[in-house]
Amino acid sequence: MGKRIVVIGAVAAGPKAAARVKRLDLDAQVIMVDQAELISYGGCGLPYYISGEVSDINELMSTSFHLKRDAKFFEGAKGVEVRTRTRALAIDRAQKSVRLQNLATEELYSLDYDQLVLATGSTPIRLPIPGAELPGVFTVANPSDAEAIREPVSKGEVEQVVIIGGGAIGLELAEAFTELWGLETAVVELQEHLLPGLLDSPLARMVQAHVEAQGVKVYCGEQVQQLEAENGRVARVVTSKRTLPADLVIMAVGVRPNSQLAREAGLLVGPTGGIVVNQRLQTSDPLIYAGGDCIENYHLLTGKRVHYPSGSIANRQGRVIGTNLNGGHEIFEGVIGSYIMKLFELSVGCTGLSLAAAQREGFDAFETLVSQADQAHFYPGQELMYLQLVADRPTQRLLGLQGVGAMGQGVKARIDAVGAMLKFKPTLDDLSNLEVAYAPPFAAALDIVNAAANTAKNILAGTNHPLPMDDFISIWKDKYAAGVTFLDIRERDNAAPLVEKWGPLWVNIPQGELRYRLAEVPQDKKLILVCNAGMRSYESQVILDHAGITGTANLQGGYAALKKSEPIP
Amino acid sequence: MGKRIVVIGAVAAGPKAAARVKRLDLDAQVIMVDQAELISYGGCGLPYYISGEVSDINELMSTSFHLKRDAKFFEGAKGVEVRTRTRALAIDRAQKSVRLQNLATEELYSLDYDQLVLATGSTPIRLPIPGAELPGVFTVANPSDAEAIREPVSKGEVEQVVIIGGGAIGLELAEAFTELWGLETAVVELQEHLLPGLLDSPLARMVQAHVEAQGVKVYCGEQVQQLEAENGRVARVVTSKRTLPADLVIMAVGVRPNSQLAREAGLLVGPTGGIVVNQRLQTSDPLIYAGGDCIENYHLLTGKRVHYPSGSIANRQGRVIGTNLNGGHEIFEGVIGSYIMKLFELSVGCTGLSLAAAQREGFDAFETLVSQADQAHFYPGQELMYLQLVADRPTQRLLGLQGVGAMGQGVKARIDAVGAMLKFKPTLDDLSNLEVAYAPPFAAALDIVNAAANTAKNILAGTNHPLPMDDFISIWKDKYAAGVTFLDIRERDNAAPLVEKWGPLWVNIPQGELRYRLAEVPQDKKLILVCNAGMRSYESQVILDHAGITGTANLQGGYAALKKSEPIP
Repeated sequence: MGKRIVVIGAVAAGPKAAARVKRLDLDAQVIMVDQAELISYGGCGLPYYISGEVSDINELMSTSFHLKRDAKFFEGAKGVEVRTRTRALAIDRAQKSVRLQNLATEELYSLDYDQLVLATGSTPIRLPIPGAELPGVFTVANPSDAEAIREPVSKGEVEQVVIIGGGAIGLELAEAFTELWGLETAVVELQEHLLPGLLDSPLARMVQAHVEAQGVKVYCGEQVQQLEAENGRVARVVTSKRTLPADLVIMAVGVRPNSQLAREAGLLVGPTGGIVVNQRLQTSDPLIYAGGDCIENYHLLTGKRVHYPSGSIANRQGRVIGTNLNGGHEIFEGVIGSYIMKLFELSVGCTGLSLAAAQREGFDAFETLVSQADQAHFYPGQELMYLQLVADRPTQRLLGLQGVGAMGQGVKARIDAVGAMLKFKPTLDDLSNLEVAYAPPFAAALDIVNAAANTAKNILAGTNHPLPMDDFISIWKDKYAAGVTFLDIRERDNAAPLVEKWGPLWVNIPQGELRYRLAEVPQDKKLILVCNAGMRSYESQVILDHAGITGTANLQGGYAALKKSEPIP
Repeated sequence: MGKRIVVIGAVAAGPKAAARVKRLDLDAQVIMVDQAELISYGGCGLPYYISGEVSDINELMSTSFHLKRDAKFFEGAKGVEVRTRTRALAIDRAQKSVRLQNLATEELYSLDYDQLVLATGSTPIRLPIPGAELPGVFTVANPSDAEAIREPVSKGEVEQVVIIGGGAIGLELAEAFTELWGLETAVVELQEHLLPGLLDSPLARMVQAHVEAQGVKVYCGEQVQQLEAENGRVARVVTSKRTLPADLVIMAVGVRPNSQLAREAGLLVGPTGGIVVNQRLQTSDPLIYAGGDCIENYHLLTGKRVHYPSGSIANRQGRVIGTNLNGGHEIFEGVIGSYIMKLFELSVGCTGLSLAAAQREGFDAFETLVSQADQAHFYPGQELMYLQLVADRPTQRLLGLQGVGAMGQGVKARIDAVGAMLKFKPTLDDLSNLEVAYAPPFAAALDIVNAAANTAKNILAGTNHPLPMDDFISIWKDKYAAGVTFLDIRERDNAAPLVEKWGPLWVNIPQGELRYRLAEVPQDKKLILVCNAGMRSYESQVILDHAGITGTANLQGGYAALKKSEPIP
């Protein structure tokens, strides 16, 4: 028997590292321990088990060929010994030994290691508010949580759900409760818009409009202050602005890395709470590797250490660890921040930095919002896709992309094309001429990612004077006092209902007639140009600038993006 | 009035360049000429007009807001003067003048230019064989061709179609005639497999199996020798191997750049037949720019000049030309070779070099075929996707990717993620850890692009000994003489029908039991390991190698890829 490798944690990074090193070194003894009974589950699938789309919890623990990934499976298929219900209590680095407890028998024992892997994951944050521990209040960390949530729901014992946290998990759960179980569901988000870590407000507003249209109540900018009980169970959620009835409350306000074991063993833990590792995923003890949700990662765009939990990244890190345990020299360079989610009929994705994040990091960043069909305009069945591009003004460097579109892989295609380039420090020029795959059923001839870059370049060149969606909405709220005229340069049929409704505030000159009708352009107030997608209004702006009618502003993303975001005008 | 810019050719690159430069310089006089009546159409949409999916030919010439892109539109919306049915006969570079003919009046006149743009496109090749000019024989270059093809089809006058050429256009047309019109359709391809410029044989075989299942007859490796007539119309296609009845014949055997005008004007034309341009898309005369299908492009992977016709690239080049006409400094670096197409229920895509192309270019290239679900295995509704990755052995550099999957944007997402990186010269490590966007409805936690890189790395590391699909098929054809045993390491239920059918040739030991049943492994013949996707057979190979049972070969892509390609075993 060769060296002994002990792996603590049997979800994602742990099993991957264990199986990989065993394949490279069949003489090694690989022992994987986990405090839970159920291991190697697809944690990202828990919302789909709660919703019922995944009918059996065991499917989350199965291979693609329908074998359950339990201790017996790991023994036979991977040659890895698994000890479930076994908690790691302490690491003795001097002795190279882990103190373990069998939770079934309460037996305590030590296990020597030659190398150790920490894949201890993360724990959902439970807000320290009154009532947080009441029955009926859950976080979603593992299959047991999911079963405990689904059971009363499936029995019809739940009518009103409040989800605290409007991030990705919170919204996936909102869909699960609304779409599949028909429950009254409310989401309370502390920040001013949904998905605050992933999106800026324009696309977040589209997401909110969509989930609200599906019946989810959304309360942003509200702090949950306490949970109140009735008959010993949670019954109400009290926010800074209202009280919501609830017989089930989910806290989905983020996770914390499980780094206590590492910290107590004297390993370096960073300010994010994650275990510090080098690019080979070694901790400050070179015999101990760590990966997955318990570590902090280098962010390839900001150069900072971040806690960035992801089942997908954990898997990739597991492989790197497995190789390096065997003396290999793989590196994990860092994270970019790519994400995609299904939300009812939408797919919502992002990569890199949001505008808010980029500005916080000190970039002189600006954004571009574009709307374009996800197929050639003549190909039947296309739907509009919306992208927000974030770039650095002085260097023209691409910093991030966010997208909202119909469900399917169209948004992922754009996110991944840009995400794949980001570590190579691409500029807007690289994206403007990026050769993405084209045929009419898949894209316009000039793909929306190319169009986004071109629009950003026009903004930088000073030929496109954009009006961000947020500013449009602010102006619209106070439209009579704002000293503006809206010049709708779409065709008559499109503009007519607004012209009729808003009188002299909303004027229509179709773009193709504008160069002949310059005398009719109202010049007493600031002009806000509106077309359907923001392209024709840009073309109009060029004509107006040349005619000396300057100071106009062009609604980014056009009326299509506005309509997707807000019930106005 | 400022300078005069003349644009020859009013599809894709021409209109884009014209509109772009006019936006940047409203004082310029921009005149675009085209010999056709119909301009600025989406040429890639012609197959969908022939199929009837696009009902009205005018949709191919419309904007996304339903205005027809005719001369009046360009005048009003873009400020560009258009002269249709106007042929450019000659360029007098000394005089800076173009000789034009109005095809309606036959009037000849000259038009001076300050700058000139050549966007003369390409022409489908008509094979120089007897009967090539018979009535009923078409190429597909423009809306007139498409109308001429669709008319008799829609009247029920066509029953049997033969398409000469099994490339992308040929197959799109095969779908159009079969799926939408229910015609008997045959495709004759000179090369040994379909889509020879885009795919290698394993995925091409999947494509062939799919189109044949939809009723298309496919004859590869056959040369069309002549077309025979009956009653003055085409009636038969005679190939090197058979005679096919046909009342409609389409030649889809590639296109040639329209560079004669440039050549006659003394501009440099390359060996590909395309006009030579620099990165700013200037021809050898700095006052004359060229873009689109009439030029040759620099290939970013081979460093060679290629003719690479693409409506999407033409659009991007048009913008670069427009900017540079106005004194800008945009560059078009070159092409990568990204493509995607719909084919009945499949999407088929590629980027970079195929294995055959890479080997022709002198790379020490090898391939990896992987099969994986396009969603998490537990998420309902997933379908298998198949990728072939091509990489350079000594440098581990990525050279290309091909994909086949269900219709939708899943294959495009993988093609574009890899395609976006290619010019940055990524290695397998870059792809192994590429952070693509993940959630269970969109991908497995370890995306298929990561899995493809990992498999390629295992092959290079010598731990995965692959058997290419082509070799498997050759062996299977002569399986009793080949001195092999097939070791199926899937679960009993999967393997049972084959074990029953093929007796001692096909042996089953499930992978999870293999390490305990090594004594049962037949060792008298070469072992070919088979699982469903090629992963478990790799794991088995590691176990067998360690046990001293070496010399095994692992079917790349597994039984799933085999079944998708061939009706065997």
